[in-house]
Amino acid sequence: MALRHYTLDFSLSTPVDSASTVHGLLSIFHEQEMTETVHDTEGHGYIATFVGKNGRLVILRVHSHGLITIDLQCYEDDNIVQLDNLLNALEKKLKTLLHGNIKRIKRLPALIRGAKVDRYWPTADGRLVEYDIDRVVYEEDSAYQNIKILHSGQFGNILVLNGDVNLAESDLSYTQAIMGSGKENYAGKDVLILGGGDGGILAETVKQKPKMVYIDQKVIDGCKMHMRKTCGNVLDNLKGDCYQILVEDCVPVLKKYVQEGRTFDYVINDLTAVPISTEPEEDSTWEFLRLILDLSIKVLRSTGKYFTQGNSVNLTEALSLYEEQLGKLSCPVDFSKEVVCVPSYLELYPFRQIWSCHYV
Amino acid sequence: MALRHYTLDFSLSTPVDSASTVHGLLSIFHEQEMTETVHDTEGHGYIATFVGKNGRLVILRVHSHGLITIDLQCYEDDNIVQLDNLLNALEKKLKTLLHGNIKRIKRLPALIRGAKVDRYWPTADGRLVEYDIDRVVYEEDSAYQNIKILHSGQFGNILVLNGDVNLAESDLSYTQAIMGSGKENYAGKDVLILGGGDGGILAETVKQKPKMVYIDQKVIDGCKMHMRKTCGNVLDNLKGDCYQILVEDCVPVLKKYVQEGRTFDYVINDLTAVPISTEPEEDSTWEFLRLILDLSIKVLRSTGKYFTQGNSVNLTEALSLYEEQLGKLSCPVDFSKEVVCVPSYLELYPFRQIWSCHYV
Repeated sequence: MALRHYTLDFSLSTPVDSASTVHGLLSIFHEQEMTETVHDTEGHGYIATFVGKNGRLVILRVHSHGLITIDLQCYEDDNIVQLDNLLNALEKKLKTLLHGNIKRIKRLPALIRGAKVDRYWPTADGRLVEYDIDRVVYEEDSAYQNIKILHSGQFGNILVLNGDVNLAESDLSYTQAIMGSGKENYAGKDVLILGGGDGGILAETVKQKPKMVYIDQKVIDGCKMHMRKTCGNVLDNLKGDCYQILVEDCVPVLKKYVQEGRTFDYVINDLTAVPISTEPEEDSTWEFLRLILDLSIKVLRSTGKYFTQGNSVNLTEALSLYEEQLGKLSCPVDFSKEVVCVPSYLELYPFRQIWSCHYV
Repeated sequence: MALRHYTLDFSLSTPVDSASTVHGLLSIFHEQEMTETVHDTEGHGYIATFVGKNGRLVILRVHSHGLITIDLQCYEDDNIVQLDNLLNALEKKLKTLLHGNIKRIKRLPALIRGAKVDRYWPTADGRLVEYDIDRVVYEEDSAYQNIKILHSGQFGNILVLNGDVNLAESDLSYTQAIMGSGKENYAGKDVLILGGGDGGILAETVKQKPKMVYIDQKVIDGCKMHMRKTCGNVLDNLKGDCYQILVEDCVPVLKKYVQEGRTFDYVINDLTAVPISTEPEEDSTWEFLRLILDLSIKVLRSTGKYFTQGNSVNLTEALSLYEEQLGKLSCPVDFSKEVVCVPSYLELYPFRQIWSCHYV
């Protein structure tokens, strides 16, 4: 059973005397038959806890610098209307007591803790966001990662790998961006997709001539069942008229292609943002990213293009580090960048297009 | 000074004995010189509070149904690394103590309470979301509403009216959607914009022949200074070659147009989602919406179109109620709907196109 955690905060223009403020609220807690404990804070404001029936808990703090915070925890099966009324009563009373001294009242949507279905999946830049997720559609642990497919009212099914939101059925804009935003013609071209186990890129290029390399069979298994708006039927068979899905680690595959002199018009890197490697031969994430980049550029034809996603636009340091890596490849490259809104990401993402300057 | 509120939750497969679990954690709290109070919960699990130096507060709950929740509150100027280490130590210890019994460990980004700049602006469907807002650019109270312009790292400046995110500089997709997603030709057409004080729609139609009606001068004042990526220079003057901004309540203006028999090719309703009325003659929000709709349809030419935004796609009841209103207008209408991702909304929004069936 989940715990509902409400917060109600008053930011004040000037600090208040805790005694009179608290005294004004006590009757409300007593009406609820809550047992009060006042804590010694050694001069850091006033803290009282109130324990009530059914596991209800309130923490009231009058901070010494002009802030009052109230936490209310209760179980999901408690009388929510009654608790809303308790918060309303506290808010109303504090409005009266603090009249003219209030800068901001903030009452956030309740945090739901320990629920069967977890709705909180922080953004790449570390912000707290609640999704409209109502059920877990699929969950498996592969040898490499935890794979979840969660249902959202607005985004459809969402693929979450190791806790990272990867792609939702609403996110055609992701697939379009990582394919060059409609400016490329894939007809008759050799295309190599790294990652992309959700089948989105494959589904969009399938009328043409793609070849796909992928590392994790379990992702394909989940997506072909639950992300059909994204992948259509392209994942039903590992081989189609114009595509082949290799369920392998992409590094040895890329190395083999380099050795064989096999080349492509497009390499689309849709690997997870945090790299997954079966036999890591690199010291760090950045070295792994550079290894993939280097091998990819080597299998690109002289007029070829390499597409990949960045990370949240707010991770400016990581974005600069990535561009630094581009200067360290075994052949010179140039690149362009486009910022795109992917619905389920709740943050803007940059997509990069990279090409070799070798032959220029 | 803001309060940082951390949460660390363990969801368990089977309930645990609180005595042994708590005992294993006590040394960590004692190392931090925290004073413990154990509360009587009348059989509803274990609750202990720990008060430490600098106003630090921990609430430890071992719930009787297989959930452990930890809250840690501290001030923003506290030693954050030390507190991260405290949480790490608690997490590590609990992992050992609960080995094999853990379904999920959830440690959310800290909630920042009472900060100078508020980053939490819930979505229309009531979800808790944290924006990357770093400063307040503009704040005024007009006679009708509270107007804020907040700066976000990724979305640019965001217009927030009465706590509702209205439009950010990143949100050209909003303006494009409410103008018919590029399928309309406004050249030489008579256009009436209701609301739209951010100037986005006006800026996009300015080469053509728009006329704008708006109620709240103060919104225009803030936007022409701080939303220039959205409005360009169209708000600098109330009158341009092909547009006129009426700083008036749109209801009497619409009534006058109906009386005069003045008609338009397009009416674009960009009023706030929650209506603001200077002299409300209607009983409810829905009646106000219907009044605007009715008057708008009356000033539309037979081939004219009415565009408007909906609300979050998750507010399904409100969306059906809106469509119900469409059946109650003084003349029959038909409509189409398109769902659009507006970057700063963090939720999908429907946009509606409505036309009169009068002449069909």
